[in-house]
Amino acid sequence: MVDINRVIDLHTKETGVLSIKPSFDVKNRTDLGEAYTPGVAELSKMIHADPSQKAKLTMSGKLVAIISDGSAVLGLGNVGPGASLPIIEGKALLYKNFAGVDAIPLAFNQGSIDEFVATVKNMAPSFAGIHLEDIAAPRVFEIEKRLAAELDIPVYHDDQTGTAIVVLAGLINAAKVVAKPLTDLKIVINGVGAAGVATAKILIAAGFKNLTLVDIDGVIHPDDTQYNPYQLELLNAITPTAGATLDDIIDGQDVFIGLSDANVLSGAQVQRMADKAIIMALANPVPEILPEEALAAGACVVATGSSQWANQVNNILAFPGLFKGLLASGLKAVDMHLQIKVAQALADLITTPDAENIVPGVFQPGVVDAVTAAVISYSQEK
Amino acid sequence: MVDINRVIDLHTKETGVLSIKPSFDVKNRTDLGEAYTPGVAELSKMIHADPSQKAKLTMSGKLVAIISDGSAVLGLGNVGPGASLPIIEGKALLYKNFAGVDAIPLAFNQGSIDEFVATVKNMAPSFAGIHLEDIAAPRVFEIEKRLAAELDIPVYHDDQTGTAIVVLAGLINAAKVVAKPLTDLKIVINGVGAAGVATAKILIAAGFKNLTLVDIDGVIHPDDTQYNPYQLELLNAITPTAGATLDDIIDGQDVFIGLSDANVLSGAQVQRMADKAIIMALANPVPEILPEEALAAGACVVATGSSQWANQVNNILAFPGLFKGLLASGLKAVDMHLQIKVAQALADLITTPDAENIVPGVFQPGVVDAVTAAVISYSQEK
Repeated sequence: MVDINRVIDLHTKETGVLSIKPSFDVKNRTDLGEAYTPGVAELSKMIHADPSQKAKLTMSGKLVAIISDGSAVLGLGNVGPGASLPIIEGKALLYKNFAGVDAIPLAFNQGSIDEFVATVKNMAPSFAGIHLEDIAAPRVFEIEKRLAAELDIPVYHDDQTGTAIVVLAGLINAAKVVAKPLTDLKIVINGVGAAGVATAKILIAAGFKNLTLVDIDGVIHPDDTQYNPYQLELLNAITPTAGATLDDIIDGQDVFIGLSDANVLSGAQVQRMADKAIIMALANPVPEILPEEALAAGACVVATGSSQWANQVNNILAFPGLFKGLLASGLKAVDMHLQIKVAQALADLITTPDAENIVPGVFQPGVVDAVTAAVISYSQEK
Repeated sequence: MVDINRVIDLHTKETGVLSIKPSFDVKNRTDLGEAYTPGVAELSKMIHADPSQKAKLTMSGKLVAIISDGSAVLGLGNVGPGASLPIIEGKALLYKNFAGVDAIPLAFNQGSIDEFVATVKNMAPSFAGIHLEDIAAPRVFEIEKRLAAELDIPVYHDDQTGTAIVVLAGLINAAKVVAKPLTDLKIVINGVGAAGVATAKILIAAGFKNLTLVDIDGVIHPDDTQYNPYQLELLNAITPTAGATLDDIIDGQDVFIGLSDANVLSGAQVQRMADKAIIMALANPVPEILPEEALAAGACVVATGSSQWANQVNNILAFPGLFKGLLASGLKAVDMHLQIKVAQALADLITTPDAENIVPGVFQPGVVDAVTAAVISYSQEK
């Protein structure tokens, strides 16, 4: 629980939680000549002659744009661009506080995919990277794909990639706790929006095959045209359990990964899962099943998205160090091998996992450094 | 002169001259809940329910976007978006240092006017104001006009409005120095790009009629289709001196305002101007005529755009206080009455003008406060 009056006070006393900090004061004509004209004209000429100088001489070499249209805000839905600003501004604050990464929140009006992509491309010279946030699927899949292809700076969708990385990190350690071979785990992913698709992709890339995907209309199967191509293409790589609904396929599953809604999994269903079941009930603020209920029904490891319980699967474990590493290494893409490497680095931070310790805590020292190091190491291997 | 190595060092040691400053540190779970989830979800709900809360609860209520496409950088020409970044980043530094205004530099690719306008509109929910910089005329006239009409935040083009305000402030005091009635002054404006058009407009609005506009192809007259509509519409309100070239019309002029190129006015031409001529030779870095040459030819008051000489007509006298006042007052437009009011406030800072003191110095205490007060006072009169 938070004290809402305190939250409002913190976010209003300086009009938001971010401000712009000049790196030096202009106190006299010499300073002015160096901070502005004629000094900057010399820098302009250098960039005009050699465009690669831009990233060294201006903040465009370090600044990340965190962009949302507010079409899919976690727990709130489509609240529009203005209402997405507190979220992305808070995320920019976390970037700076946790990893020293400079990021600026940008809320876009909700237009066409073409308009979104054109807007980002048009202002891309100002930035070192693009962080997409809280944009509805399937629209966000095409936006991310096109931007990644058309820009020469990294494009990262936190709801997808950040979630997928931390889920895989948790699974690696949870498998150790329940003493089952990792990629043999029989897994159901409930909720196949942006985060669900990305989680399925990273699991497939990591070698998992026993995956069943369930969306709001039931188990995804290839003959059903109501699913989007991004969901359907996942089916080529997996062996789903036969059945039409979550309830049809829950028997014998080793893992339930919920990226859906509050209270959609019952204790009775957990009882029908395999022995030593792993439950990741990541809906926020209310999980798919309360941890106490899942544990009472026999689950061995339970994780949620909230700090109220043990095992908080939170994107903040990934994004600050990941972007710090991207900026430090100059990597232009967050590919699947990189995502798996970061997940392994996060998992490795827990030397002896137990049922209440499958992922590091948000404030555990070394998290950002480990993630950053994994990214830099990956860039050196490539 | 600046030391280029020192300029490079200042602009590279933190990758540019700006960074993002969080207003508080996140040290524990309580802080995290207030800076980010679940605290920010409460703020999102408040904004979703009442959009007017956005400007209070997020930095969008104070943040100015300084936007350039690098198509008309002072003294350098069309150097492109990347090379405009040092200029607009330096300007953002000045905004913060001089007036506490938070501004972020955004370089846009050079597309169509429609694309430029659409890009700004699409991300406008993130900002409290738009500052346009170094965009070529006549393209910038339409961009500014459309944005001012279609956005509900102030749109300000510094090359136009900032220049016009400071020129008028200087003229007000120069007229006192030469003891001629202000609006009777016979004026030639040489260079009718963005700054020249804006200067002509403010002078017309302030009651000047004896204006002759000269562009690179000669004196602007209504039968010549090579001039753009923004230039031609000025002719309806003025009484130009007859002639085809600057040299044809220079005899007897009281004022030469140069917004053009180096060395286009000769000492011999200054000698043919009226007694006690006023010369504003504002081309940068080299003025239309060197001050020593103009004074030797009999000019009484000489101003330039450079800090090397007395009477520096510099936009920095206007823009920091102007935007501080816009943000403080909630004014949505920089109309002509406001511009004249700010010019008068700047002129009034010089209690006893003389030939070397027609505008305040950039570092003179009270400049920003006087401009801000003028804007707030105007907003209260409206």
